[in-house]
Amino acid sequence: MKKIFSPDKKDWNKILKRPTSTVASIETTVNTIFNEVRQEGDSILRKYTSQFDSVSLDNFLVTTSELEEAKDLVSEDLKNAIQLAKSNIEIFHKAQVTNRVEAETKPGVLCWQEKRPIQKVGLYIPGGTAPLFSTILMLAVPANIAGCKEIVLCSPPDNEGKLNPAILYTAQLCGVTKIFKVGGIQAIAAMTFGTESIPQVYKIFGPGNQFVTVAKQIATKFGVAIDMPAGPSELLVVADDTADAAFVASDLLSQAEHGIDSQVILVSTSKELILKVEEEIVKQVFDLPRKEIAEKAIANSRLIYVEDDKTAIDLINEYGPEHYIVCVQNEEFYLKNTFNAGSVFIGNFTPESAGDYASGTNHTLPTNGYAKQYSGVNLDSFLKSMTFQKITKEGIQQIGSTIEIMAEAEGLQAHKNAVTLRLKSLKE
Amino acid sequence: MKKIFSPDKKDWNKILKRPTSTVASIETTVNTIFNEVRQEGDSILRKYTSQFDSVSLDNFLVTTSELEEAKDLVSEDLKNAIQLAKSNIEIFHKAQVTNRVEAETKPGVLCWQEKRPIQKVGLYIPGGTAPLFSTILMLAVPANIAGCKEIVLCSPPDNEGKLNPAILYTAQLCGVTKIFKVGGIQAIAAMTFGTESIPQVYKIFGPGNQFVTVAKQIATKFGVAIDMPAGPSELLVVADDTADAAFVASDLLSQAEHGIDSQVILVSTSKELILKVEEEIVKQVFDLPRKEIAEKAIANSRLIYVEDDKTAIDLINEYGPEHYIVCVQNEEFYLKNTFNAGSVFIGNFTPESAGDYASGTNHTLPTNGYAKQYSGVNLDSFLKSMTFQKITKEGIQQIGSTIEIMAEAEGLQAHKNAVTLRLKSLKE
Repeated sequence: MKKIFSPDKKDWNKILKRPTSTVASIETTVNTIFNEVRQEGDSILRKYTSQFDSVSLDNFLVTTSELEEAKDLVSEDLKNAIQLAKSNIEIFHKAQVTNRVEAETKPGVLCWQEKRPIQKVGLYIPGGTAPLFSTILMLAVPANIAGCKEIVLCSPPDNEGKLNPAILYTAQLCGVTKIFKVGGIQAIAAMTFGTESIPQVYKIFGPGNQFVTVAKQIATKFGVAIDMPAGPSELLVVADDTADAAFVASDLLSQAEHGIDSQVILVSTSKELILKVEEEIVKQVFDLPRKEIAEKAIANSRLIYVEDDKTAIDLINEYGPEHYIVCVQNEEFYLKNTFNAGSVFIGNFTPESAGDYASGTNHTLPTNGYAKQYSGVNLDSFLKSMTFQKITKEGIQQIGSTIEIMAEAEGLQAHKNAVTLRLKSLKE
Repeated sequence: MKKIFSPDKKDWNKILKRPTSTVASIETTVNTIFNEVRQEGDSILRKYTSQFDSVSLDNFLVTTSELEEAKDLVSEDLKNAIQLAKSNIEIFHKAQVTNRVEAETKPGVLCWQEKRPIQKVGLYIPGGTAPLFSTILMLAVPANIAGCKEIVLCSPPDNEGKLNPAILYTAQLCGVTKIFKVGGIQAIAAMTFGTESIPQVYKIFGPGNQFVTVAKQIATKFGVAIDMPAGPSELLVVADDTADAAFVASDLLSQAEHGIDSQVILVSTSKELILKVEEEIVKQVFDLPRKEIAEKAIANSRLIYVEDDKTAIDLINEYGPEHYIVCVQNEEFYLKNTFNAGSVFIGNFTPESAGDYASGTNHTLPTNGYAKQYSGVNLDSFLKSMTFQKITKEGIQQIGSTIEIMAEAEGLQAHKNAVTLRLKSLKE
């Protein structure tokens, strides 16, 4: 691991550089598949499913009997765990419900704001070795609280044409309305345009590999919204001598096992802690089944010593970490002054994996420095706010001349007329 | 104007089609200018300002003396109007402030959500014949309430190297921190990368021509967020016999004067009203200074008769209008069942221009059907929500085994370890 002591501010950019990947080459593939899906619908989905997932499917929709079967295949322990996590996520996301905001800005000028659900949303859940049922909890639970009418889920089938039972169980538990066995670029294209079997949606959520990520970007060109731009996962820990080095090492490793492009950073005002954490990492990585991945990610990562809290906070805000663990004496200072972070984990007994699964917060978070301007997924991600205004005769008399003057000054006579006509009618 | 009676549902798509424009050809130009600005900074801004705005500038930053001068050039009437509008916009956007959301999901598992300001935002205000100072109100007022630290404004200078006094006056009044005389693609590129004089920002807001719109799209490839994808402005009015045909016509025309690609639609269950509104439009358009623009936009537009309210609401939700006037007896039905609209204007005395200027609601709204999944600009557009969790020893004992079981099932052993280590330490 790279240890860096008291780096010069002018080098921060270089030190905090994220492992990036180029995607230009993928765009051509994505555009081709999008065009095909748009024109040919289900038949081309069958072709790609056979090509990429090595299985030939007549129907993509998961049937009731498949759902029943899945229930029996998930262990009671896992079911209980999923239910407890769901309950916590529900509690926290229900707490985010807001009331209508109302203001009478002038007598007779009533304005209000209401949030309404996005009617049709699509969730993408990757396949592969690890079935990410936890992501279904993070997306379908708030979609349901928001009141989205249609919640579509796409996930690639295995080579027997099946989805992992834990995925089916969780999707069903969380009120997903339709589950389709289709993955990759073709799934994103299907939800963008709609096909004979898969409905078009207004917003697409969820993680994925490089192909899926680029496909989601391209989808936005066709009028679909996405949760946020995606990048490799990352964790920044700020810790001092009050932190437990073994715990810190375990958190850094839990992030590192995600992928070889994951990035983990430790920032500390204690050189001693940095050395201890380094030792602990070497010790703990040894037993991990995903040791090779974690080791490669760790090689990309940094242990950074800084002289004081002020420097630390500037560096953290410059980076804008997705996950951010704060294990320091002077906790309040860090919480108050961090402006750019996705989700914050405070104290020795708050591992990052708690937020990944069960504390109740959402684990779909802005990576790649996007914490500077994007929220993580939350209840509002499934709603949009609409504004309303109702003006009485008294109200238009209160603000009418203001509108007339401003419209005139902007050279928009018809805007002015719409008010003038009304004011005149009140004088008659 | 095209009158359509009881259209078949299968033709809705065709009838509701928006006038679209292709942008592919612009992308090359935008990419070139972005590359140049990234590499050459201010010097290339000077070149383009000279080329597109016909003026040679040494400094882009508006000086204090220019600001003082502008104050004297704006009439007292206009100043008062701007101040009243500002006050209403402030009242409505301050009402949108939310408190921290907190939930103890299990004993010892405390989660909360806080909104923090986006530190650096950029506002783009177009130049040209009409100075859009009202848009400054709509963007800078909420940016200030949110607490954004740096609020940068770019707008193209006239051929004397000046900005319209109303723009300077409003920007100053609303707490814009720096105003730059630079416009077009080069302004968006400058705020994306930063130059010697213009700071890099995290999110760019504001309207613009096709070039600016594409530039904002391209900016998102470089890690900048934008307010929303933009399209031509539009208005849908739903009205019955209780509506005033002259008022309805004046509203349709106020939207039509924006541009030849603006779209206005009247949906009504009254054939009589449709005919009356058509007559009124012909009458009122005659005197407009922007008559030619309005007439062309009106030619694109539709007067649609439907048999009943249920059909009307389905058609409206399918369209998802940016501006939406509701002038009907059965008002509650429409308000309750409209899911897709930007801003809603209710009753005979609520012209759309009220929301453009002074009611207090925001006029930066989703066009092109984006009301299906995007909010208009509101206070939250300048904030991002961060989540926090603080788990006690008791708390991790409550949810620890849940995390362990789920992490194991997803094949993420290091995620599990981070919990196991902590649970073990509590048993010792």
